[in-house]
Amino acid sequence: MEGVIHVVGLGPGSRDYLTPAAERVVTQAEVLVGGRRALDLFAGLSAQRVEITGRLDDAITAIRACYRNHRVVVLVSGDPGFYSLLAVLRRHFPPEELEVIPGISSIQLAFARLKLPWDHATLISLHGRELSILQPFLDKFPLAILTDPVHSPSQIGQYLLSQGVTNRQARICQDLSYPSERIIVTDLEGMAAMEAMGNAVVVITDE
Amino acid sequence: MEGVIHVVGLGPGSRDYLTPAAERVVTQAEVLVGGRRALDLFAGLSAQRVEITGRLDDAITAIRACYRNHRVVVLVSGDPGFYSLLAVLRRHFPPEELEVIPGISSIQLAFARLKLPWDHATLISLHGRELSILQPFLDKFPLAILTDPVHSPSQIGQYLLSQGVTNRQARICQDLSYPSERIIVTDLEGMAAMEAMGNAVVVITDE
Repeated sequence: MEGVIHVVGLGPGSRDYLTPAAERVVTQAEVLVGGRRALDLFAGLSAQRVEITGRLDDAITAIRACYRNHRVVVLVSGDPGFYSLLAVLRRHFPPEELEVIPGISSIQLAFARLKLPWDHATLISLHGRELSILQPFLDKFPLAILTDPVHSPSQIGQYLLSQGVTNRQARICQDLSYPSERIIVTDLEGMAAMEAMGNAVVVITDE
Repeated sequence: MEGVIHVVGLGPGSRDYLTPAAERVVTQAEVLVGGRRALDLFAGLSAQRVEITGRLDDAITAIRACYRNHRVVVLVSGDPGFYSLLAVLRRHFPPEELEVIPGISSIQLAFARLKLPWDHATLISLHGRELSILQPFLDKFPLAILTDPVHSPSQIGQYLLSQGVTNRQARICQDLSYPSERIIVTDLEGMAAMEAMGNAVVVITDE
């Protein structure tokens, strides 16, 4: 539908978690807007592509230029409403011009892999934020944290130790849903000593 | 795989939100365990069926009797880790005997339909619980509540008003993902006066 921006959650990355609802909307796109990895997932489609790099403003400008005349689909990993693009798009477009398809967050897949319920978990993203936002949650667990290359599991481990937190188990879920998926079970000291990595989900428990 | 209980999140109800990962595990089942609506979704499969009624203990007994020799798949609506069966199964089976496939919670679809982010929302289920558990969250919003026939939107509205809560918008999301899906936007007084309904998602905001 023209005049509506379709915001589609792709899930953690693999097509295994892409819903039919998401797939249907994406295949009808005339313009696909998303990060490199998301666009690559649909390399076979003939839609025009707008790659989101660091500068979100450029993507907003590109969407604004064409969504009234073309079917624009914005691809996001995970769920659009969970530490993702929906909040940004809401600042630029009225709700009636948005259609949102939910997706599985990598945090949901992390808890599934760990066989842990997450209804009582504290869920936090460090994308674009400071480690100190963890401060009010030091005694909460399970505590699940979306990390990024800037805020690595190692830095989180060092921060928690510096705040006097002890006796925690840390599970670092890396590359969830990809063939390279890996889950590392350690303690805060072990996590603090880990090498840097890309996006991951860290789940801290008291077990 | 025998000896492993596969716990599969089906999403809010319609196949539109059933992931390929979930579909693959379900189609390989020898025994399907689930509520009537979940079992009906796979009426075409030849697997043996165990219907979960009110008595969860019976389902646990049935699973225990066959999971070492048969591929057992437990079907749950939404996400197994979000106010669902995973917590119960963890009390009866060790984690290494469980495999969990995440699903889209109806709360995620509710926020998608309302075009609202949910990363800062408070998420609560009233299934099998008392209205008074809402007490600590009266000044939190968005506040999302999974209702059931016992704790209807009407009762929630009456409870919130009785606690002196005012100036809230209430959005009641009914039959999400089904053709009968309906979203009602009202205030607490309007919600308090509503007729009873089955499962729904209520989202309270200050807008």
